Formats: sequence, C-alpha cells, structure tokens
Amino acid sequence: MNKFKVIFQPSGRRGEIEEDKTLLEAAQALGVDIEAVCGAKKICGKCKVRIEDGYFEKDNIDSSMDHLSPFTDDEKEHLKIEDGPGMRLACAAEIHGDVKVFVPERSRAGKQIVRKAAKELIIKLDPAVKKYNVNLPAPKLHDMTTGDMERVLKFMEDKYGLPGLVFDYETLKDLQDALRKGDWKTTVTVWMHKEIIKVEPGFVEPSYGLAVDVGTTTVVGYLCDLNTGKVVSTESMMNPQVPYGEDVMSRITYAMTNPDGLEKMQNAIIEGLNEIIDRTSSDLRTNGKNGGNVIVDLTIVFNTAMHHIFLGFNPVYIGRSPFIPAVQRSLNIKARDLGLRINPASYVHVLPIEAGFVGADNVGVLIAEEPYNQDETVLIIDIGTNGELLLGNRERVCSTSCATGPAFEGAQIKFGMRAAPGAIEKIKIDPETKDCLYKVIGKADWHTQLQEVNAKGICGSGIIDAVAEMFKSGIIDKSGKFNIDLDTIRVRLGSDGKPEYVLAWAEETSIGTDITITQADVRALQLAKGALYAGVKLMMQKMGIEKLDRVILAGAFGSFIDKESALAIGMFPDCDADKVYAVGNAAGDGARMALLNRDKRREAEERARWVEFVEIAVEPAFEKEFMMAMHFPHMKDKFPNLKTLLEKKNLPVTIKG
Amino acid sequence: MNKFKVIFQPSGRRGEIEEDKTLLEAAQALGVDIEAVCGAKKICGKCKVRIEDGYFEKDNIDSSMDHLSPFTDDEKEHLKIEDGPGMRLACAAEIHGDVKVFVPERSRAGKQIVRKAAKELIIKLDPAVKKYNVNLPAPKLHDMTTGDMERVLKFMEDKYGLPGLVFDYETLKDLQDALRKGDWKTTVTVWMHKEIIKVEPGFVEPSYGLAVDVGTTTVVGYLCDLNTGKVVSTESMMNPQVPYGEDVMSRITYAMTNPDGLEKMQNAIIEGLNEIIDRTSSDLRTNGKNGGNVIVDLTIVFNTAMHHIFLGFNPVYIGRSPFIPAVQRSLNIKARDLGLRINPASYVHVLPIEAGFVGADNVGVLIAEEPYNQDETVLIIDIGTNGELLLGNRERVCSTSCATGPAFEGAQIKFGMRAAPGAIEKIKIDPETKDCLYKVIGKADWHTQLQEVNAKGICGSGIIDAVAEMFKSGIIDKSGKFNIDLDTIRVRLGSDGKPEYVLAWAEETSIGTDITITQADVRALQLAKGALYAGVKLMMQKMGIEKLDRVILAGAFGSFIDKESALAIGMFPDCDADKVYAVGNAAGDGARMALLNRDKRREAEERARWVEFVEIAVEPAFEKEFMMAMHFPHMKDKFPNLKTLLEKKNLPVTIKG
Repeated sequence: MNKFKVIFQPSGRRGEIEEDKTLLEAAQALGVDIEAVCGAKKICGKCKVRIEDGYFEKDNIDSSMDHLSPFTDDEKEHLKIEDGPGMRLACAAEIHGDVKVFVPERSRAGKQIVRKAAKELIIKLDPAVKKYNVNLPAPKLHDMTTGDMERVLKFMEDKYGLPGLVFDYETLKDLQDALRKGDWKTTVTVWMHKEIIKVEPGFVEPSYGLAVDVGTTTVVGYLCDLNTGKVVSTESMMNPQVPYGEDVMSRITYAMTNPDGLEKMQNAIIEGLNEIIDRTSSDLRTNGKNGGNVIVDLTIVFNTAMHHIFLGFNPVYIGRSPFIPAVQRSLNIKARDLGLRINPASYVHVLPIEAGFVGADNVGVLIAEEPYNQDETVLIIDIGTNGELLLGNRERVCSTSCATGPAFEGAQIKFGMRAAPGAIEKIKIDPETKDCLYKVIGKADWHTQLQEVNAKGICGSGIIDAVAEMFKSGIIDKSGKFNIDLDTIRVRLGSDGKPEYVLAWAEETSIGTDITITQADVRALQLAKGALYAGVKLMMQKMGIEKLDRVILAGAFGSFIDKESALAIGMFPDCDADKVYAVGNAAGDGARMALLNRDKRREAEERARWVEFVEIAVEPAFEKEFMMAMHFPHMKDKFPNLKTLLEKKNLPVTIKG
Repeated sequence: MNKFKVIFQPSGRRGEIEEDKTLLEAAQALGVDIEAVCGAKKICGKCKVRIEDGYFEKDNIDSSMDHLSPFTDDEKEHLKIEDGPGMRLACAAEIHGDVKVFVPERSRAGKQIVRKAAKELIIKLDPAVKKYNVNLPAPKLHDMTTGDMERVLKFMEDKYGLPGLVFDYETLKDLQDALRKGDWKTTVTVWMHKEIIKVEPGFVEPSYGLAVDVGTTTVVGYLCDLNTGKVVSTESMMNPQVPYGEDVMSRITYAMTNPDGLEKMQNAIIEGLNEIIDRTSSDLRTNGKNGGNVIVDLTIVFNTAMHHIFLGFNPVYIGRSPFIPAVQRSLNIKARDLGLRINPASYVHVLPIEAGFVGADNVGVLIAEEPYNQDETVLIIDIGTNGELLLGNRERVCSTSCATGPAFEGAQIKFGMRAAPGAIEKIKIDPETKDCLYKVIGKADWHTQLQEVNAKGICGSGIIDAVAEMFKSGIIDKSGKFNIDLDTIRVRLGSDGKPEYVLAWAEETSIGTDITITQADVRALQLAKGALYAGVKLMMQKMGIEKLDRVILAGAFGSFIDKESALAIGMFPDCDADKVYAVGNAAGDGARMALLNRDKRREAEERARWVEFVEIAVEPAFEKEFMMAMHFPHMKDKFPNLKTLLEKKNLPVTIKG
C-alpha cells in the first residue's frame, strides 16, 4: 500500500496517508477539522479546499493535480468560478501523491480543535459481538412443534458450540421474515456468546462497533470494523452539555437546582451521540438499511459525573461527601433503553468506574496502558477537564483524582481560552532580551510581524510554556514572584498595580488589547501544578516509591504540552525527559480495546476494583507537600539563547524591540 | 370466616360469599356483570342494585337491610327518590347475611356475558417475583469506591443468599433516591432470583401479579395478591381485535392483506390489556404511585394466532403449511418493550405453545388439570373459538387441534349468536307433543307466556340442547334428517323448502320473526361434533385407549353446555355422565398457577414439549371416522317426559299448543 505525504494549512498538520483516501479522510486522520455537513455524501459542498503547489523541500510536485484523482461531476456542480483556482471538494478528491492543502476559513468547522485522532492499537481481535451464518433446511410438516427460534438455536449449538443462547425480543420479531427472505440462510449477531441481537437474511459480512469517549468538553466516537479492528471513521463534537455548565461541578449544580436539569443534560448527550452515530455510519449500508443500525456494539468511557448524567443517575451524591457513586461496576444496557440509534437490541457497554472521583475514562487509560503489567514504575497523568493519576507497576497501582483546578485548561487565567483557533499554544522567551515568539493555533508557523497573527488568548499548553519560559529567563523567580527590575518594556505593572508580562501586543491580536501573563495567572498555575505535584509525591510516599521510571501524559492536553516546560515548572516529580511521553487519548484507546476484545472487559472490571483509590485531600501531609510543590524546581541546566534556538530550527526571527 | 348465600337476578347466578365482601365483589366472583365505571371508587353511581326480600325457601330473611352494611354517605349522594325503594350501590353495600339482589337493566354492563370467574386454586405459593427488605448502614467516606448498587447486591447475597443478581437499568435509576428517601431502608423486587426489577423506599409489603387469558373473543385478567395467592379482582372485555376478524383465520387474513394489519391488531390487544391493567389495579396504591405500577408480574396464555399477534410475530406462517410457529418455548419480555403499563422493568411471562395449532392456552389447561399426573385416562376438551384436545394419563398425553368449525359458538347457524343477553341457552322438548320450553340469557327462569321473553337467537349451548332434544324426541333421526310426518305445527318447511323446527314464536322474540333450527343448522352441528368425536376417536386408536375414564370440559363454553345433551348428540365417545365435568376457564387457571408458582413455569416448559402433538387431519383414517361420527349415537335409555321433568324441578309449565 503506497503512502503519500499530506500537509494541511494553515494548521500545519501533516502525515503519511494511504493512496486513494480522500482529503477529508486524511484531514480526519490528522485531526484537521473540515466542515462536512452531509457526512461526505458530496451533497453539501461545504468541504472546499485549495490545493497549493511547490511546498515540499524536495520540490517533487510538478503539478498538484496529478497527485489527486480527477475532477468528479459532483465537484463540478459545487465549485464555482468565484471560489478561485485550485479548489476541490475534500470528500471527493483522492490522494494519488504528495500534496499540500489549504483549508479556507469558511471550510473550517468553527469548533474547538479536536486532537483525538485514533492511534493504531495492537490487540488480539476477539470482539464481544460476532456474526454467524446459519443455514437451515426448509421446514417440513412434522416440524410444526418446533418454532423458527428453536431451529436457529439448535443450529447455533450444534454448529458453533453455543448452547443456551437467548433471543432479544425485538430481534425475534425479525426472524420469521429474515429466514424466508434468505431462503433459510440467515446471519445472526451474537453478544458475548449469550444473546442473539440481530438477524439478517442471507449471509452478511460487515460488522461495526463504536467506541465513545465522552469528555467534559469534547465527545469523540471511533467507528471500528469488528472484522479487522480498523478505525473506519472518527467523529467528534463539543459536549452538548457545555451550555449547562463548563465543568463537572457546574453541571452537578445545574442538576441540583433545576427539576428537569438531569433529564435535559441526559437528552443532550444522547442526542449528541446519535449525531456521532449518524456521522460515523452514514456511509455504511447493509441490506437496504443504513445509518446507525449497522453498529452492533458500543463501548463508552467518561468521568464519573458524565457517567451518571449519561445514565440518568442523579450526580448530586458524587458531588458531596461521602461521594458515593450510584454504581461502580460495568453495565450493559440495551441501546433502545437509552435511546441510542444503533441496532436497537445491542448493548451499550459502560466501563466500570474506580471511585466517586475516578471514572470509566481512567479505567480506559488503565487498560490501554496496563501499568499492572509493567516492571517499571509508571506515572500516568490524564489531564482533561479533571486531573486523574495512576501510579504503580505489576505489584500495585494506586489512583487518585487531583483537584488541579481549571488553570491547565485556560480557565481562571486572564487571557485563558480553550485550545481553539487564535489561542497561543507555544511560547519562547529570549533569556537575554526577555522578548518572545509564539505560535497560534490555526497558523502554520511561529508568529512574525509580516503576517496577520490575530491572537485571541492563551490555551493550557501556552500557559505552561509561558510560565516555564518566564522562569527560565528570570522574569519570575523560584517562588513565582515577578522580577520588576528588568530592562524590558514587556514587564510592567498592570491595571491592578501588580506586575505582568506582555506576550502579544495589541496589534498582533484580534481582540485589540495586549495579551499578558499576570502575577495572578502565575499563582493560578502554581496552585494547579502544585496540587498535581503534591498528589504524585504523596502517592509515591504512600507506596514507598522514590523515583519515577516513566511518565505518561494521556489525553489531548497531555499530547500538546511541551514536556520540557512541564519539567521546568515542576508539574510532576523529576524523571528523565526521554522517559516522559504522550500517548494521546488513552481513555478512548481503552474504549476501543474493550470494543475489540472481550477479555479487556473482564480485565477492566477486575482491575477497576484492584486499583487502590487514594483520597489525597484528606491526607494530613497534603497541605505541607502542596505548599512546597508550588515553588518552581532548581534548574539543572543553562537554557539556550532563544535566537540560537530559533535559528537552529530555521524559524524566522523577528522580535519587537 | 362466615359465608352467606347471594343470589343475583335476573341472571339467577348464585353462590356462597364471604362476609364483608361488597355486592360488586360478589357479582364479579359469580360472573354477574354490573357496570362499575369508576372501578368501585363510589364515584360514578352506575352500580345501583335493588335488594329483594322473601326469596329464600327457608324464609330466613326478615329484613334484607339487616343483611347488608348500613348506608354510606356516598350512597346517599347517588341514590335518588326516583330510583325507587330498596336501592343500594353494589360497590358500597357489604354482605352481612343471605341476600337476593336484582340488577336493573341500566346497571348491567352491555357486554357479552363473561363466564370466566376465577375458581379457587390449590397451589403452593412460590411466585416468580418476590419482595425483600434491604437495610443498609449509611455509607461513610471510605465507601467511595463502592456504589449504591454494589452495597445492595452484597446485602442480597449475604442476607438472602442470592448471589449474582443483576439490576434492571430503569430500576437502577430509582435506587439512589429510594435509598436516601427510605433512610437506607428499601424494598427490592426480585424476578426469578435473577434480576432486581423494582426498588421502593422503606419497607413495602403489597405485591401483585396479573394472569391474563386472551381468547379469540374474550380477554380476561385476574389480579392476584402475590403474598396470599388470592384473586383481588377480575376484569374482562371483548377482545379488541374482533373488529379485524371474528375468528383466527380472518385475523390472519387481515394481517396478510393489510400492510399495517399486524401492527394494528397488536396495538389493539396491548391497549385492551392496558385497560384491564387499569381496571384491576385502580384501587391499589403504594408509595404515592397507583395504577399498573403496583403489578410486578404478568403471565399470559392464548392460542397460537393470538400469541403471534400479541408478540408482533407474523401469524401468516402458522396459517399455512407447514404451519411453523415463530417460537415454541416460553418467553420473558420486558413490559416496557411490549408497551404494557405495569411496572416497566417487570417481565411478561408468555407460556410456551405446543405446536402451530395448539397454543399457550392449551398449555395453561395442561398444567391446571395435570393429566400427566393421573392414573385414569382423561380427555380434556377446550372449546373456545377453537377446539383443542388433550388425551392421556401419566404415561403419555397427546394433544391436537380440532377443526370443529364455528357452529359450537353459534356461527353458521341461522339464528346463532354469542352467549349474550337474549340468547336461548337451554331447551327442553316434550317427546310427546314436540312442544318446547327454553331459557334466555338475562332472564332468571325458563320462559313463560306471562313474561316478556325477548329472545334474540340461540347460543352454542342452546344449539347443542336443541339438537339433542330434537333427536331424543324423534324430530330428527340418527342421521340428522327431519321427520316431517309429525303431528306438530312446530315442524314445518322453511322458506328454502327444507324442514325446520320452530323454537320460539315471533311474539316471544325481540326480532319479530320465528326462531328456528333448520336442517342446515343440524348439519352444521353434525359437522362440528363429528370432527370433535372423530378427533378423539382417532387419538384413542393411536394411543390404544378403548374407554375414557373421565371427560373434562374446559373453557367458558364447556361450563355451560348440558353434559347429557353433549352425550346425547355424541360430541365425544361414551363416558359415565358423572365422570363428565366442567372446570371453567382452565387456561386462565394455568396462567394463575404460573403466576403463583415458579415450578409451574418449568413444568409448563417441559410438559409443552413432552406432550405429543398429533396432526389428525392428515391421518388416512380421519375421513372414515369423521363420516361415521356425524351420526347421532344409539340411545341407551328412554328420556323422561318433559312435563314430568319440569314438574320435578318446580318450573312453570306453559306450553304453547
């Protein structure tokens, strides 16, 4: 299978994509958000992109058009003269060579940038839901005492060694006609070797399952082919519960203070998932039925509050002492009872939770990373809207939830914002001049004064970078206090009379005012990182661990923070930088594993109970550790000069004096 | 417990009723239909009845009023001067002594007379659904890793020895609040030692189940107290599918010829059952919820076609060769999946069927009468709209379905009608004068010319009586042919030129024309009884049985035919008259037994498969047996003179000359 290099602008995302994939599929694989309202049906014409020439250093593109499939009639219908030259529909153009693509503003989905593309998993394929062909002789008069159901069940026992199967009632309704339409050949879909949840006339191959990760902010679904294990499509959206509260506690409060609050939020997430179901499955078609009906299995992970709201359990009791969840174990619930529009008889497998604070998403991380199979001591940090920790090895693993506060997500920061276009995500400060360079989400490169920058704010990874750089360049000291005696106009007193550092001048922004990091911002980040550090430190003490062998950063946020910055500010105890790595959406990986392998479900159930939950906030030592952890650590090395650094990376150097 | 004699007029139904029961309860127990729109809430005032004095031979009533509870305020509100003296509300007046009650026309429900009152069953009480009290300590902080569900499940295992229970999802939603409202005391309802299907705050006692018998024509529901086994209330109605077809085949045809025919008929019966659920349970109330929610279990029997339509299975395939049912085994289906408004997590237990023609109603008869536990050879005939037979003893039991045609139900008979007010149900013919006397449903006594008779037609038991009497008095001969040389004006040639017998003169009817039994009517009855007789005879031959030890007539119809008339026309092979008896609605009895005893469900499942289904119509010998069986049998005795007979019974003798 040939692969070609594809680069998307302005985001700069790039990767190797298989031949014949469409540009839209490439964009989805690389986490580039392109509007595709019709679900790649070539109807809506929203996914127009411009093909750009002469980008690659090796200059191996003579004409971009040869590197894509020929124009289709659908494209001719949608593309107009006024769209300008080089335009294609991303859902129609297939990749035949290296290509560079520009996604115009109007074709970009106006949503948060979703950085949850699925990575490849290595797992034995043994899904909970499997298809079987059934081939019966036509019945005779003497079969009158044996029903259609009994004949199918006997075949399943005799031929496949599956005794004692039961039939879902709704599925049973389809059996008579399926058998006769298929001339006594039929395909039955069996859940967990227990229950027949679908019958189709004739012999049918394709089988799909959906793995879902419901984050407080983002919902992502991975549609998987259950015969190959491959991800067929990935769809994501903002959690439609956001209007009811940005974070977990505000949604719990909403449920407490509104009589129908829980119902509203439950309906919102169910409808959101139905949209993801429609979008991932709209291209699939079996036996005349298309859409969600082809999906025969669904696994789902989320934090405890999202778990409760999704299931219609009152989340109030996990929000207050003694923080008792409604249920800890995994659950299997009929899709039709939840109102999810997949095959109605299929079960939604809800992964277990660990404790009132540590949810099924953490169990997903646990079974994806398997610290319980490691000799090395591993720390896994999953910072979504909540911070959850796993620490241990094959002997013992502890988990806890860390009240880091929302600073890592950009909240409580003066110019904080989500990781969305316009957010400053990377920052470098020259230790000599104290000037800075930064990169904005939605722009390909680091900012220069030659381009329109249009910065809007700072996202989580940007804040960590900024504070790390401010510390490394001496703008703030070990305690987080500003050094106001520096010879730079970027450090000044703000309107509150307290010092601040100017990251972007008003003319570089789209908000018409300077974007700054204030003393209060530094303090907020110190509180967040201090809580995290103290949490890890206490768990290490409790477990008698002195040194971390490995640190795994899970979650979208973990994938985008600069690990050297994280080490510089002391987000977690010291570890070799090359033993710190990001694994992406490990919670979603765990959901996919549970979809593709039955044993992983049992493993999740067992390990969720085996992991020891540690309640850190109640430890007497916490306060002291927390105070100490707010400081920045001693620097081990001199940091390189910014100019040298940028020149080495061939980036433009334009620093405002 | 004192019991008193209660007689209802004009139906003449009578029985011993326990003290303190209301007249309405007595009427329901005795199958007397009294309008009670409000469900005995004393609101509608529709159930007015008149108390009649001086009826009993022993003359032990001095004042009827002492034999009832005092007037209530509700009665005073509803009873008016113009209602006349001696009126009471049947739902308010309680029985304190023997009493005779007249039900005025306006208080009678205008429905078919339902003769399906529940008889007392002797059965070990071990229902499939049971309640358990759960008493937990309030949770502490260290319980954070254990959900509410897990704590309840652990209690059920530790305290009641019920490990591995699962929670119904909808029920799980109620758990958190139920535990906290009940101060950690709760009552859980468990199905078959497997699944928790209801949780209620605090300790709750009452527990109800509904046993349902869906006949082609009539639907009846028995609400039972699961703690005592007692029938709390009985409600019946016409099968709301009747508008789609009077008999099984016409409903199957309706499903074949109308795209939404099956759905319409399914909805009709579901809505009908919901009405029965509302009517039986409207008086019950637990924890603020009333109505069907208090019903936690439901068992149901019906013939195979009604079974398929109720479940939404296509009934077409059981209507044509090779007559394969969708399913033979028993099924447990969530009430919410069927749309039945009992406790939504409860299972509807559908009893198994025996074969394409022999339904769950016959399985109900089977487990109620238990021929497989008898040494004697028993024939059980269940003639509803279909005729089904069971024959055998503990060694072996065979079943078959008999194509008797609808003559027994009054169809295909010139003046045939259902067993409803106005139908002639009993007939005596004087062997000398060939004059006759008859009794009309809705009238207390045999007809006289002094009263308004208002006969409308003849019901099934009346036809059997008429033909038996015509044979016994020599009006027809052994072959069913009329003797037209008799000296009576009642035998004449009809408009078709064929002989007929006048049963009621036009002035005795409400239809303004003579009611007759025609030669064609006699032939129709001969076909029906011939099919039944031949069926039994063939089964006896097949099983090597020479003599029936006992004949049981099951079903409403079986309860009302005169067994001597049945023997006289040869409905079934000879048997001592005192070994022939009616058991009432045995199918419904079986449904009640399955409700009250779990073992009965297993017994039904096993015995439904153990019983040998015999397909009689395909037997080569059938035609010959059938031809022979159409004749009437040799008379063993002389029949007594009608006058002597009636005088002996103290009935008025007034024969039109």
